[in-house]
Amino acid sequence: MPSLIHFTLDPFSRRMRLALAEYGVPVELIDETPWDPSPDIFELNPAGTLPVYLEDANSPVCGIEAIAEFLEETKGRRTSLIPGDAYERAEVRRLTGWFDTKFYAEVSEPVITEKVIRRFLPREAGGGGMDMARVRQAMVRLREHLDYIGHLADHHVWLAGEHLSIADLAAAAHISAVDYFGDIPWADYPVAKSWFQRMKSRPSFRPLLADTVRGMAPGPHYADLDF
Amino acid sequence: MPSLIHFTLDPFSRRMRLALAEYGVPVELIDETPWDPSPDIFELNPAGTLPVYLEDANSPVCGIEAIAEFLEETKGRRTSLIPGDAYERAEVRRLTGWFDTKFYAEVSEPVITEKVIRRFLPREAGGGGMDMARVRQAMVRLREHLDYIGHLADHHVWLAGEHLSIADLAAAAHISAVDYFGDIPWADYPVAKSWFQRMKSRPSFRPLLADTVRGMAPGPHYADLDF
Repeated sequence: MPSLIHFTLDPFSRRMRLALAEYGVPVELIDETPWDPSPDIFELNPAGTLPVYLEDANSPVCGIEAIAEFLEETKGRRTSLIPGDAYERAEVRRLTGWFDTKFYAEVSEPVITEKVIRRFLPREAGGGGMDMARVRQAMVRLREHLDYIGHLADHHVWLAGEHLSIADLAAAAHISAVDYFGDIPWADYPVAKSWFQRMKSRPSFRPLLADTVRGMAPGPHYADLDF
Repeated sequence: MPSLIHFTLDPFSRRMRLALAEYGVPVELIDETPWDPSPDIFELNPAGTLPVYLEDANSPVCGIEAIAEFLEETKGRRTSLIPGDAYERAEVRRLTGWFDTKFYAEVSEPVITEKVIRRFLPREAGGGGMDMARVRQAMVRLREHLDYIGHLADHHVWLAGEHLSIADLAAAAHISAVDYFGDIPWADYPVAKSWFQRMKSRPSFRPLLADTVRGMAPGPHYADLDF
């Protein structure tokens, strides 16, 4: 069985778990802790980033776009997650990049670093109390992104067009990692909320809703489909 | 004629100029200044990042991976820059991500921000003298990347395998932007240097070697094929 080396709340790992489930590829999950990486990880991926996808033990595929395109090329014949003509596919990839680069830098990276990583890091490596100002600023930027998602979901069925795509998976992966902490002002963003409800209702999403991080219970509505 | 909205020393813009030239697509270059973006740019690309590729005036393609894959899908039939089977293509994309994410964060972003952007930004927006410690640290990290390039170029003809690929273009685009300032210790990295000499000798590279930034002459060996 293929395996995925991942961390529960890592948005990139979550994106790949969603993609594998949507393509119908069963996968064994192998836990990795980004704040204390095992030496093996650098042998599989010199950049040390998660996730790493192993179709078999000898052929690691790593780098988020490399894995996404690999899965589309090898599993996407029946269910395409980069659908459409060249322009439609460009829009899928533009939005995917939006979430993996811009949303990550502005929202999910600061929230996860401050709320999770710092808690587990030794003090000499930057561990300790969270920088609340950094989290607050991320939650302000989050509102701009929820506006943008609302705008997109108001024009199409899914974020990049009429079909589910890796753009939806990327957006939902980042948002759900932040949503674990329960502070997303969903009531102010009904269109984005309705899109996220549809995402959460998909069978591919179910395993993510059962995720927990040691010593940190999820927010009360994290696993609710009606939040 | 297609056009590319770009900034001379932006590594992502350079990567796309190289790709367009390798695919044999003539393009009109439209200058943009990242530190003082025109309002139009946000209409074409909500993220405001460069470059933006316009096959025609009404169809902007933006996001670095979106443009790269769009060009491969629409122009790559004769010359592929993402060559090989699914695993080989994954390696091309992994390395491309390495340079566009890791090399950019560790080397080209700090060097270009400190040496160029700060010079043109108004003081209240972060302009002023460069942070020399940040540049020095980037030049230390650069050595690790030159080692890695040497390791890759020692095993294959090009960085990701036996054929030129977007991984070579990404690496050369980032390195050449740093090389504009003339501080790369090439003598210590003969294998990486020999790979970069081959890149610089390609017709696609020639226009980049003629680049200049207002008020900043390139280093004495920037345009030399024998450096």
